[in-house]
Amino acid sequence: MSNDTLERVRVFAPATVGNVGPGYDVLGLAIDGVGDIVHAHRIDEPGAARLLRIEGADMQPADDNTAVVGARGALALCKADFGVELVLEKGLPIGSGLGSSGASAAAAAMAVNLLAGSPLPPDAFVGVCAEAERVASGAPHADNVAPALLGGVVLLTPHGRPIRIHSELELGVALVTPAQRVETRYARETIPASIPLVEAISNNAMLATLVYALATNNAELLRGTITDRIAEPRRAPLIKGFAEAKQAALDAGALGASISGSGPTIFALCNDVAKADAVQKAMSEALHEINIAHVHRASPVAKRGAHAIDDDGKPLHQPEASA
Amino acid sequence: MSNDTLERVRVFAPATVGNVGPGYDVLGLAIDGVGDIVHAHRIDEPGAARLLRIEGADMQPADDNTAVVGARGALALCKADFGVELVLEKGLPIGSGLGSSGASAAAAAMAVNLLAGSPLPPDAFVGVCAEAERVASGAPHADNVAPALLGGVVLLTPHGRPIRIHSELELGVALVTPAQRVETRYARETIPASIPLVEAISNNAMLATLVYALATNNAELLRGTITDRIAEPRRAPLIKGFAEAKQAALDAGALGASISGSGPTIFALCNDVAKADAVQKAMSEALHEINIAHVHRASPVAKRGAHAIDDDGKPLHQPEASA
Repeated sequence: MSNDTLERVRVFAPATVGNVGPGYDVLGLAIDGVGDIVHAHRIDEPGAARLLRIEGADMQPADDNTAVVGARGALALCKADFGVELVLEKGLPIGSGLGSSGASAAAAAMAVNLLAGSPLPPDAFVGVCAEAERVASGAPHADNVAPALLGGVVLLTPHGRPIRIHSELELGVALVTPAQRVETRYARETIPASIPLVEAISNNAMLATLVYALATNNAELLRGTITDRIAEPRRAPLIKGFAEAKQAALDAGALGASISGSGPTIFALCNDVAKADAVQKAMSEALHEINIAHVHRASPVAKRGAHAIDDDGKPLHQPEASA
Repeated sequence: MSNDTLERVRVFAPATVGNVGPGYDVLGLAIDGVGDIVHAHRIDEPGAARLLRIEGADMQPADDNTAVVGARGALALCKADFGVELVLEKGLPIGSGLGSSGASAAAAAMAVNLLAGSPLPPDAFVGVCAEAERVASGAPHADNVAPALLGGVVLLTPHGRPIRIHSELELGVALVTPAQRVETRYARETIPASIPLVEAISNNAMLATLVYALATNNAELLRGTITDRIAEPRRAPLIKGFAEAKQAALDAGALGASISGSGPTIFALCNDVAKADAVQKAMSEALHEINIAHVHRASPVAKRGAHAIDDDGKPLHQPEASA
């Protein structure tokens, strides 16, 4: 906790992969080097949060933007005697499946926390940021906001705080995003309210194995656990080139590949970032061959969640922001 | 592997808790000190397995006994040039939910492996023992046979060998078995072919957290993860005194409690065996107060799976039998 009263702060929150394979609504991970930035400054209006403008995206500021909802929730949690005005700098495309709305919420909530003198740890804001997601998608899911706040690979526990999984694996993530938009709200509707028991059992075994593999630093045990029988089969038809890109990732040696969040981004988990780079090239080539426009990148799993940055975008010293 | 040719062997396989909380068909654990014994001797009839008699239970030897089916499968797997005659000594009541049929299969399969000179590791027999369970219950589940073979807490992985979870926790298990019988076949019918998505997500998160807690030796994180929304709510009404016994276990400090396999045994997981002893007393008292006859015990989680024993029931030296 700092004794200095900050007047303004700039916070970066990373992109995230939600629904990591078998972890529908349960597992998420943060992507290094890409995300949203929130600039926040204090105003003398306790509890108020206003979004002045949005840069980097063709979006109008609105009161139901996740940054606003996240900031308001954080002001209440921190019992702040001030309000905030925000500028949101989008580094993430909307509706790409990379946790765009969650990153905005996480950055705004952490900005408020910093302005308030960091009274709370980052995981305290998962609830208010998940509530912001409810505004965006109709359901209060936390598998994007939790890794955006905490960094790393995060397990949502129904009975307690989210757990950042401790692993010594230095995993890389390959990402391709076909040039189309999938609305989270619509994508959620593809998943029925009831599912076959065999699908639930399969995902349950796969997720438990995936988490055990991470905890025991066993990359080879990870291989094959990115197998989702709940969301992927139902959403894949919405995503152009999904089958081709996934096959290319596996052929190129990825540990597994699936849909990031509600898509259209396709992610592949890899042993390290060098392999992720080779895999993203293979996925990109596969999409290129069938004339599907897309963007592509490779990144390590982010070690840091939402954190203050300086004018050059470099992290500020801020021990309380890492989980 | 041994070079001696054994003529006869005696193998003990432990009782097991299947469906451990949220791990329906996915997680099982072995109980120390109680289980079935198979006495096997070679006969000159390659591939044949015959059950001569059953001791300790009012059951007739039959060709579809899991010991016979397990032994036959093991003879084929081991490419044995002999057959076996078996005597099954039941230490476990049938239909108690403690993996009685699975223990018989595991003991018989390991007996064959030992007579064949231990050509295969214990986890190689999970498939044939699960097939034996199919004969008994109509479904080829492995959450009893895998821990009966391997010992410890075992995660069934859909894409590979079962994993014995490495944990330094010295957990204790409290068990009460009301004097009634629940047929596995019937109990399975209480679980519908489709289940609500929210139940699948809850179990998925709980099981992943449970496994992470074991892997990180975090007993307090275990607390609350024995929460099953799939099987327990549907099967609890079949079990006399379930609600009372579970509440007594939690009040006495158990980490969690649920139905063992398809019941009627109720298990409670505890920090250690001393706590398990206090918890089984509390559960027993709760059942006694409402006049439900039952048996009760407390045991550590078994470190060993199926293993050879001498005439006094003591383990023989047998390094290949521990996973």
